[in-house]
Parts: sequence; structure tokens; C-alpha cells
Amino acid sequence: MVRAVNLITLTTDFGLRDWFVGTMKGVLLDLNPKATVVDLAHEIPAGDLNAAAFALAAGYRYFPKGTVHVAVVDPGVGSKRKAIAVQTANYIFVGPDNGVLSWALAREQVKACHSLENRAYFLSSVSRTFHGRDIFAPVAAHLSRGLPIRKLGPRLMDFVKLEWPEVRYEPGSVRGEIVYIDRFGNGLTNLDAKAVGSLGEGEFQVFLRGRRVCSVLDCYADAAPGMPVAVFGSSGWLEIAINEGDASRRFWLRTGDAVIVRHSRSKTRKNS
Amino acid sequence: MVRAVNLITLTTDFGLRDWFVGTMKGVLLDLNPKATVVDLAHEIPAGDLNAAAFALAAGYRYFPKGTVHVAVVDPGVGSKRKAIAVQTANYIFVGPDNGVLSWALAREQVKACHSLENRAYFLSSVSRTFHGRDIFAPVAAHLSRGLPIRKLGPRLMDFVKLEWPEVRYEPGSVRGEIVYIDRFGNGLTNLDAKAVGSLGEGEFQVFLRGRRVCSVLDCYADAAPGMPVAVFGSSGWLEIAINEGDASRRFWLRTGDAVIVRHSRSKTRKNS
Amino acid sequence: MVRAVNLITLTTDFGLRDWFVGTMKGVLLDLNPKATVVDLAHEIPAGDLNAAAFALAAGYRYFPKGTVHVAVVDPGVGSKRKAIAVQTANYIFVGPDNGVLSWALAREQVKACHSLENRAYFLSSVSRTFHGRDIFAPVAAHLSRGLPIRKLGPRLMDFVKLEWPEVRYEPGSVRGEIVYIDRFGNGLTNLDAKAVGSLGEGEFQVFLRGRRVCSVLDCYADAAPGMPVAVFGSSGWLEIAINEGDASRRFWLRTGDAVIVRHSRSKTRKNS
Repeated sequence: MVRAVNLITLTTDFGLRDWFVGTMKGVLLDLNPKATVVDLAHEIPAGDLNAAAFALAAGYRYFPKGTVHVAVVDPGVGSKRKAIAVQTANYIFVGPDNGVLSWALAREQVKACHSLENRAYFLSSVSRTFHGRDIFAPVAAHLSRGLPIRKLGPRLMDFVKLEWPEVRYEPGSVRGEIVYIDRFGNGLTNLDAKAVGSLGEGEFQVFLRGRRVCSVLDCYADAAPGMPVAVFGSSGWLEIAINEGDASRRFWLRTGDAVIVRHSRSKTRKNS
Repeated sequence: MVRAVNLITLTTDFGLRDWFVGTMKGVLLDLNPKATVVDLAHEIPAGDLNAAAFALAAGYRYFPKGTVHVAVVDPGVGSKRKAIAVQTANYIFVGPDNGVLSWALAREQVKACHSLENRAYFLSSVSRTFHGRDIFAPVAAHLSRGLPIRKLGPRLMDFVKLEWPEVRYEPGSVRGEIVYIDRFGNGLTNLDAKAVGSLGEGEFQVFLRGRRVCSVLDCYADAAPGMPVAVFGSSGWLEIAINEGDASRRFWLRTGDAVIVRHSRSKTRKNS
Repeated sequence: MVRAVNLITLTTDFGLRDWFVGTMKGVLLDLNPKATVVDLAHEIPAGDLNAAAFALAAGYRYFPKGTVHVAVVDPGVGSKRKAIAVQTANYIFVGPDNGVLSWALAREQVKACHSLENRAYFLSSVSRTFHGRDIFAPVAAHLSRGLPIRKLGPRLMDFVKLEWPEVRYEPGSVRGEIVYIDRFGNGLTNLDAKAVGSLGEGEFQVFLRGRRVCSVLDCYADAAPGMPVAVFGSSGWLEIAINEGDASRRFWLRTGDAVIVRHSRSKTRKNS
């Protein structure tokens, strides 16, 4: 089992406008003065579990083994949803059991999942609205100091998983969708190089709402400034971008929008 | 007196777009390489003393004893307003003497307040527009290393206090107001459980601009998604929220808006 | 040569919404667990080299000697633009060779500039879209541990420089322009005290688009609330501000707008 390394990451929808993230860090440093706390993402749209799950899955694996990853997007705070800690071969994950951890966990070898019930590891007073501060931060601080997760509460056989949108393979094309829109306005899809590679070698065209918008190229700068381009981005997903521009605004991208990739040789009725 | 612990928090309206907060950290780490610097809040609306005072008061006490809390919202920078350091039983506070520290200090046992006048603890060159970098950061760095606050300048008998809005008790109701709107659009009031509890036991209704908007419940998720709810939030204040929504937008909330809480048994003319 | 001090700053246009900055920190801490990483600025407008170069030049020198400054605004990522590390008398700078480092370097004594080509110091897999994570962060981590920059690749004789807008001296006036607009809506110009001082002693008026907008005063609060004022700001540049207001919105400021400063004695045709 991996050893904890006094490193804790935070992924939340708390924003940086208020004192929420800061007080979580106060609690963490109070309980583990040796902790280093790193913000992974805090401007997740309020309550957007998919965006948080995606950000965590895209970012967590660049941290040293033994890092404790905390994710708190928690519209059900104070209700009966469980809170969990999950030990994997490389990391420990902490958060509400609402799926926010699940896309990262899908890439990891899960060793054990425990329900957070032992109040000895919570703040002495637990609010009904801010478990990030009152439960998740103190639990993460204890874990980062080496507390075994079994101390936290009973073992669970399973945890809530968010559905990952399916890729559909059709003759000469693959169909995915926009799953995340980043700060540059790039629309990340659920299509990776393997999915697109299933069409064979060659050049590929990308279609959005039935219209061709761009080709798949190597990097943003392979398109002229202001021109659309699709590239396999830094997390491995095909993304629709505008070189030196904002694809999200140009194409009114929304998560869930269908994206189809065709081999350049394939004819489509619309464009033939 | 509490010992300094190399931990410094920053609460400012500098935002994170420019280099202002970063350079404060440069100064802090230059003068105290062992310092850990935590952002409490930086996206306070420009010049909004009340919002900064509220954020500091809500967040400061989750940090280890001995933490140095710096708050810089400072529209009078470069004018004749004083700059102060305040020692309390548990913490040290540093900032302009314009009230920004006062709501936190109202909860603390104040031991001494000194005017920042000893230029030996400032940067060698002090600008007229950025005392956060030139005065407050270097002073905080020295304090975090254990400098006694009396070294900083003459003792003051008092400091500027922001007015805290009064709660009015009427037969069968208490009247407060919105004092802070957070990133989720929740409207935090100056009504705590004690104020509402003065109405006795039972169920409570919340009125905004003369109209009933919701009941007081235990947690956001006790209301249906999209429905308004009032809960006692993580800082102890009653807040008006929408479960999985934004109360600030729904009700056009502004700080200063009157909020009335009535016992459910009470009849109101408007709603009887 | 200055010794590295395990301190690394980051200036990027990655924003804080996504996981980009967080993963850079993961890589940095994985390769140098002793590193302290400070955010200098991350909300640089996407692709705005001038804004990033200005922020870095304004902020870098408040950090301890030996700090490694990383700046990544990189519209050409994945194309043939070079990546560089530059050793100066006091610091090490790392970034794409597109000018983003150049305004800071113009203030430093440059000792050596090397092209980043030795893949031993990159992540094992380098994407075409995120060199911040895959090249600049690992290189900075190694440098912060003391790696000599010559190990990184061949020495370059020069690096790309952004043009700094020229100040024009006319009889009785100096003409500069807005070069940066900060979060308060202050418009920073390329005019410093020396440029304005060339007009002699006395009082100075500031003109924007041919109209007088304000006088040069000592601090924001020297103007009445809501009134425009020009002051020499914390980075030494004359800035157009509104006391307790937003000059950028009031005057629709844009970078590149001409700003003329005249001695109060001078007559102008428009205002005589």
C-alpha cells in the first residue's frame, strides 16, 4: 500500500471568492502542519458533478504517489448521501459518495472504500452545509499523516459511479459528445486516439450538428489563427478548438453536443 | 501570548488576475522562507470593506493559533488612514485601520493594537498605492517570525470598527438583513440561531420584501431541487438559498435587503 | 551565479477554472518535494503575451534571489517555436521563446540562454498542447533543485523580444499609451516618473483621446470618490484611475490608447 506524503489536493465548486477553500486549508494545516495543499480546481460550475469528476480524472495522476485527493462538489450536503474515502494502488481519494470521484477511480486499481462515520476524525462541530470544512478536510489531514482508511468507518462494497457517455461506432465514423469545455473555450470530447484510430489511418473530419467544422490536426497552431481545429489534447481526448480563439463561443458548444469524426475518404450525404 | 507559527493568511480585493497577491507572497517568502501563506479570499468586490470583514470573521478561526491574518481592502491607501497590527489571545491581525479587521476582532479577546510606523519593518521603498506589498506583507513576515507587535509603532487605544447591522425583535418575528452573498448566490443574514430561537420552538417562515419566500429547514437538500430554503449555514448565520440553484439571482438579493423570520403560528396581515 | 532556492513562480493564461495549473504543481512537487510554488498570475487573457510579459516584469523582482520564474502563455504550443531557460544575475526564467519573458529580462543582467531540448528533463510523454505540464514544469523543478541550465540544451545567442511601446517627447508634453488594465480598472501606461519629469517640476494634466481627464496626484484618495486621478502606481508607471471606481469602464480604456501628459502651464488649443 502506498505511503501518504503530506500532499493534499482540493477540487471543489467553492470558487475563490469566499473563504470556503481558505478555511479548508486552515483545518488541514491545523491538523497536519506539514501538509502541502494544492488547488486542483475550484471554479467548477456550482453543483456540476461531471465537470468536477472530469477535472479530477484529468489531473490527479500527475501528483506523487501517496497524495490525498479531496473532491467536494456536494449538492446533497447534510442529507443522507454517504461520504467516502477510497484507497487505490497509488492514491487516496476523499469526497461525497455522489460519483464525483468515480471517473478518477475508474482509472485506478481500487483497494478499499470506507464510509466516513467515525466522528473522532471530524471537526468537533459539524455543520449541515459545509462538510468540506467539517468532515472532508479533517479526514484528509489525518489520512495525509498516515491514518489507515479502515479507521474512518465501515467498509463499503461499492460507491456511486457517474455514467461515462458511450462512444458509438458506425461504418466510417465514430460518434461521441462534448464532455467538458475548458477556460480557452476548447470543447473536449469523449473520443480518444483509440476510438478515432478504429477508423484506420489517414485524415479525419469533425462534424458538429451535422456540419463539418474542422480536420483533426497535430496542434492548435496547425490551423491558421482564427480557424477551427481538432487535436488530441493533453488529457488524451479529442478537442474542438479555434487557433487563438474560442470554439465554445464560435460554435455555442455545450456539454452533450454530439461530435462525429469521419475518415476523409468517407462521403456524407450532406457534403457530397 | 500565543506563539507565531509561520502561517499567514491573506484576505484582499486584489483579485487573482494581476500580480498583486503573488508579489505579496514574494515579499513574505523573502523575509520568512519558512512561511506558509494561505489565501483566505482575494475576489472581494473592489473596495468592499464589509464583504472583506465578513469573510475574515467567517474564516479566521479555523487556522492554528498563532496564525498571522492579513486583510487588505484599502481604498484609502496612501492617505492618512493608519495601518495597524492587533494581537489577540489567539492570533495576530494586520491591515489598514479602516474597519476591515473589526468583525473578526469583535469575536476575539484583543490584547494590544499598535500603529505601523517603524519603517525598519517595511520594504525600503514604499509606494503610495500598494501597501499590501510594501507595508503589510513585510510586517506580517516579521510577525510570523515572532517579532513582538510593540516593535512596530506606538500603541493605539482603539481602532476603527465597522457597524454590524442590528437585529430588531418584534412580537412574533425578528428582522435582520442580508449581509453577504456568496458564490453560490446564497444570501447570508445577520440572524443566528439565538436570534431566531428567541421566537421559541417550532417552525419558521422567512419573508423578503414583505413576501414569504421559504421555511427554515435543516439543509439545502431538505427543499426540492430549484426550491428556496433557509438554513443556518456553516458560519452560523441564517441564509436564504435555492437547493441546486442561485437565490441571489432568483430574488435579486442585495446586501441590506430586510429579512424577517416569523414563527409559523404567527399570522401576518399579508398572508392571513 | 545565484543559487536556486526551491521557490518557483507561475505566470500563465491557464485560469483557475480547470486542472491545468494544479497539474503543473503536481509535476513540480513530484520532481522537487521541497519546492514552494507561488502563483504570480493565471488569469492573463488567453494568448495575451503583452499582459503576461507585463505582469511578470512587474512582479518577479519581489521574490528571493534564486527563484525560478515560469511563464507560459503559449499560443504556438506544439509548433516550432523554441522553449528556453534564461539565467540572469538573480533569477532563472523558463518559458516559450515568444517574448513572454522579455520585459522582465530587459530589467535583468542576462548570463545565458539555453534551448530546452534535452528530453531527459521533460515528462516521459510530451503532449502537443500542454508544454506547461510536460516541459516547463519538469524543467523548472530540476532547475529549482540546482540543475545548471546548460544541461537543458544548446546555448542560444538571443531570444525573442516583445516591442515596448515608445514614449514620444514633444514640446511641453510626453505621449505614451495604455499598456495594461488591472483588476481595479486602472489603466497603466508606459510613462514613468522620469518621462513625466522631463517636462520639469510642477503640476501635470493627463489627456486621453484629446480630452483632459485628470491631474497627476500622489494617491487615489487625493481625488474625491468617483473622480478620475493619475498616480504613479506600485510598479512605477503612471496609471489612470477613478478613486473608488473603475477607470477602464468610465473611459472605455483599451491597451494601445494614447495618453498625453502636459505641464499645467502649457496651453492646448482644445482647452485654451
